[in-house]
Amino acid sequence: MEILDTNFSEKLPEIVECIRKANFVALDQEFTGLFRDSTFGQPYASVQSHYSKMAKLFDGFIVIQLGISAFWVDPEDETKFQCRTFNIYLYPRGRRSTFRFEGSCIDFLVSNGFDFNKLFLNGVSYCSIQDAEKMKAQLQQRHSEMAEQMARNEADLTSHIPVPDGEKETIDKACEEIDKFLASDDEELILDSYNGFQRKLIYQAIEEKFFGKVTASPKEMEKNRKAMAITRKKSPEEEKKIFEEKCEQEMKNLDAQIGVTHIFNALAESKVLIICHNMFLDLMYFMRQFTGPLPDDLNEYKKLVHDHFPSILDTKYLCSGETLKPHVNSTVLPHLLETCRNEPFGMPKVECIGEEKYSVECEKEHEAGYDAFITGICFISLATFLKIPPKELNGNCKKLKSFKNKIFLMGLEDISCINLTGPDGKPSRQHVFHTTFPSTWKSGDIVRHFRNFGQIHIKWISEGSAFVALQQREYAASVMKKIGRTPGVTVMPYTEYEATQSPAVDAAKKRKASQEEAEKSSAKKARPLSKRFDESSDW
Amino acid sequence: MEILDTNFSEKLPEIVECIRKANFVALDQEFTGLFRDSTFGQPYASVQSHYSKMAKLFDGFIVIQLGISAFWVDPEDETKFQCRTFNIYLYPRGRRSTFRFEGSCIDFLVSNGFDFNKLFLNGVSYCSIQDAEKMKAQLQQRHSEMAEQMARNEADLTSHIPVPDGEKETIDKACEEIDKFLASDDEELILDSYNGFQRKLIYQAIEEKFFGKVTASPKEMEKNRKAMAITRKKSPEEEKKIFEEKCEQEMKNLDAQIGVTHIFNALAESKVLIICHNMFLDLMYFMRQFTGPLPDDLNEYKKLVHDHFPSILDTKYLCSGETLKPHVNSTVLPHLLETCRNEPFGMPKVECIGEEKYSVECEKEHEAGYDAFITGICFISLATFLKIPPKELNGNCKKLKSFKNKIFLMGLEDISCINLTGPDGKPSRQHVFHTTFPSTWKSGDIVRHFRNFGQIHIKWISEGSAFVALQQREYAASVMKKIGRTPGVTVMPYTEYEATQSPAVDAAKKRKASQEEAEKSSAKKARPLSKRFDESSDW
Repeated sequence: MEILDTNFSEKLPEIVECIRKANFVALDQEFTGLFRDSTFGQPYASVQSHYSKMAKLFDGFIVIQLGISAFWVDPEDETKFQCRTFNIYLYPRGRRSTFRFEGSCIDFLVSNGFDFNKLFLNGVSYCSIQDAEKMKAQLQQRHSEMAEQMARNEADLTSHIPVPDGEKETIDKACEEIDKFLASDDEELILDSYNGFQRKLIYQAIEEKFFGKVTASPKEMEKNRKAMAITRKKSPEEEKKIFEEKCEQEMKNLDAQIGVTHIFNALAESKVLIICHNMFLDLMYFMRQFTGPLPDDLNEYKKLVHDHFPSILDTKYLCSGETLKPHVNSTVLPHLLETCRNEPFGMPKVECIGEEKYSVECEKEHEAGYDAFITGICFISLATFLKIPPKELNGNCKKLKSFKNKIFLMGLEDISCINLTGPDGKPSRQHVFHTTFPSTWKSGDIVRHFRNFGQIHIKWISEGSAFVALQQREYAASVMKKIGRTPGVTVMPYTEYEATQSPAVDAAKKRKASQEEAEKSSAKKARPLSKRFDESSDW
Repeated sequence: MEILDTNFSEKLPEIVECIRKANFVALDQEFTGLFRDSTFGQPYASVQSHYSKMAKLFDGFIVIQLGISAFWVDPEDETKFQCRTFNIYLYPRGRRSTFRFEGSCIDFLVSNGFDFNKLFLNGVSYCSIQDAEKMKAQLQQRHSEMAEQMARNEADLTSHIPVPDGEKETIDKACEEIDKFLASDDEELILDSYNGFQRKLIYQAIEEKFFGKVTASPKEMEKNRKAMAITRKKSPEEEKKIFEEKCEQEMKNLDAQIGVTHIFNALAESKVLIICHNMFLDLMYFMRQFTGPLPDDLNEYKKLVHDHFPSILDTKYLCSGETLKPHVNSTVLPHLLETCRNEPFGMPKVECIGEEKYSVECEKEHEAGYDAFITGICFISLATFLKIPPKELNGNCKKLKSFKNKIFLMGLEDISCINLTGPDGKPSRQHVFHTTFPSTWKSGDIVRHFRNFGQIHIKWISEGSAFVALQQREYAASVMKKIGRTPGVTVMPYTEYEATQSPAVDAAKKRKASQEEAEKSSAKKARPLSKRFDESSDW
């Protein structure tokens, strides 16, 4: 069901309840930017440098929709799952934070029916868990200070400033108005013809001359005009009651501001198995949104994730296993669903619970709730093929152990995942060469230059530079000795090239360069396909 | 009237026509961020450093709505203006550019009825004038290259790569399909079971084996599946016609992509008087959106503005003139309108032209078109009070000369405008001191510390630091000699403080600091007003 700020407080307990009883929880998110069309430029980076690059490239984008689909075994039929799905709009409303939007990403979302007015008007707030704790502590302290001051029942004149001569008459006039008000039967006096400095002086005058008699508070008039409202002081008991109600309301408001962060905490506390399809970016966004800026060090990041979520499974990585791979042509989510609907897979028995229900037929692609639901459906279908009974489909499942806590990695040629609980792959790249050449060169020219070394794979970096990987690695040793010397053309083993890539290069510069590269590479794509390799990731 | 991508091309000539015949054009814009609530921290900066700081602080935000209201004297009644207003949604659709949003700014816009779905779905595109020229040149070159290749009527095999052994069978199969297609009566053949690399090889094979017989083009299938469509080659005449139509369509598409930039160019070419209310930020956003990143140097920026727009008038600055100031209490736009509706001002005779009309009654505040219209109405009302006849209300008006090309400046204590065509004010700041003190200090403590030097103005920088300006400047010389020495308190003349502010400090760091400062100062505001000075700008 759809979760907005209008029903969040009411539905939060149900969401937490579903997370607690789930065998697994499927997640999906929509972001404000993800450079969907870009190739990220360095297919032979280390996992650390790929992670750093991505963390910088995607800095500032945020999650605006979070889909949570919780699945548990039907207590009355252990061959069947029950499922409940929540589609949550997230938006840091009323806060000073700024975030980035990517034009084409917004285009994509609106063309898929995403309602931005709904997001901006009724998105549920969130903050980092650190901010949530800090804000709670600050509010509690402020409340106890205010309670103390109320108990003392004395004016605090220490911060008062002297009234400048030019303002004395104005302030005296305001005091006269208050005197008149006290002598009248009026319920409230509005002082609205004073500027900010004068209002400050009137607040002072009230503490000095009318302490215990009136209460003054700021009031907003039409068209943002600022004024102050004066009312008679209530009895100590009434004042106390008003104060307590105010504290309670402020605590409620703060809880609403912490918003979706409550769900993040519930997921972390439950230690439930979390699944997500192609979750490298999702996980980075998710962690950043709720725990603050990401660490630079990959191992710190892995620890951060694992400390919060000890059981994670990426269904895209699961599909790359040797049992499933031969049966899964494309791991794009809707294609995977199509695959799972047919032999040798099949649709699992799943009963959707709740007011609004998703089904595999409802075609709400790119709504986070639907995509999370579909991820869960596919996961059960794949698990059934792997002969995992429903009740074993959780974080302790032995048959899934080799896939657990491994995140599918796109963009690197020869490393397929990040291992959250161990070291990452370090494949040999002795058969890879970095080459530069005239910007007029096309793939054919590169192939001809390397013609003596067998079949090659080309990975373009920019107009005029590329990586070349030899299909037959045994040729690698002879390349530097035997390759032709052509003016304007350089060839360098990958390991040498890597050493030239100083990590000290200014981060901002790097980022800019990588964006420009991505733009160039996208411009390249706009050329007729026959002109050069199609860079799409599916070959 | 509302301008979207659906009516932009049709309405552009009318917009340009209105700009050309106008006495003056009023502008207003809505942005994705403007830190509305913040004080910007350094009330005694130089104009250059204030400009630099603002340019950095607001980097990445964009204009999403542009209001243009053109006013000209009624040809049949020279006491009356005619006016036409356009409210344009702007959005860099389909482009890779990213931009920033500020949470509270979006909040403000949606609560004022701004329709973000309309913006994202149907906003008119734009680009910098440099990009517009570059894109036009590139497209023209591509068209002439394609025309040449068509004329040569030869396959270009130079970029072809050899077919790897593993793919030979697949490619042969595709060629057989094409052979069958050519022998059939079918109109089109769809090849959709090949990956990107295979499609590349099939395109090659077509150029090698079927050149002049078939045309192949990419085709998108359902669910983003990529395929290729094969059709029979047309006759050279037909091919030429199709090619010319394609070129024309691509030029039209490019024109739509350049979008609002056409209006920027029309405004610049017309040299018409441009008016805007409180236009410092508007002008920065406007120039950046259409001419690219702003120069660091203030004088370069002034030149950039003046070269494009030789006649600019800021109605907020106009109100600060000695004739008008006594009659204008508040220069916030709706307050100014209220003022102009009453004695000694009055509403001018203005006839709105066009399908949709604004009136001063229609209460569409914060819609850019309405605010531009209101700015124009107020301007005529003020000008009438200044005894300027309608036909003289243009860029050459002598009575407005001292206000022309001066931009109202908020945030600096003692400099009221940027002068686009001359040097800016450099007021003496010998009466200003920088002071640091324990973070527990309130205004009263600072007043007491400076008690021997008359009335003071305090400008908070952060908890624990502030500027202090003496009302009676004659005391300035004695401050450093006579002020009490208190542990934990420092006092320093402004000029000395300024020298410690190295411009070499890393820009990003500065920006972060200034944001943090703004946040702190906003947090301060949330305290009870009686606890410290109200920092609002109206005293």
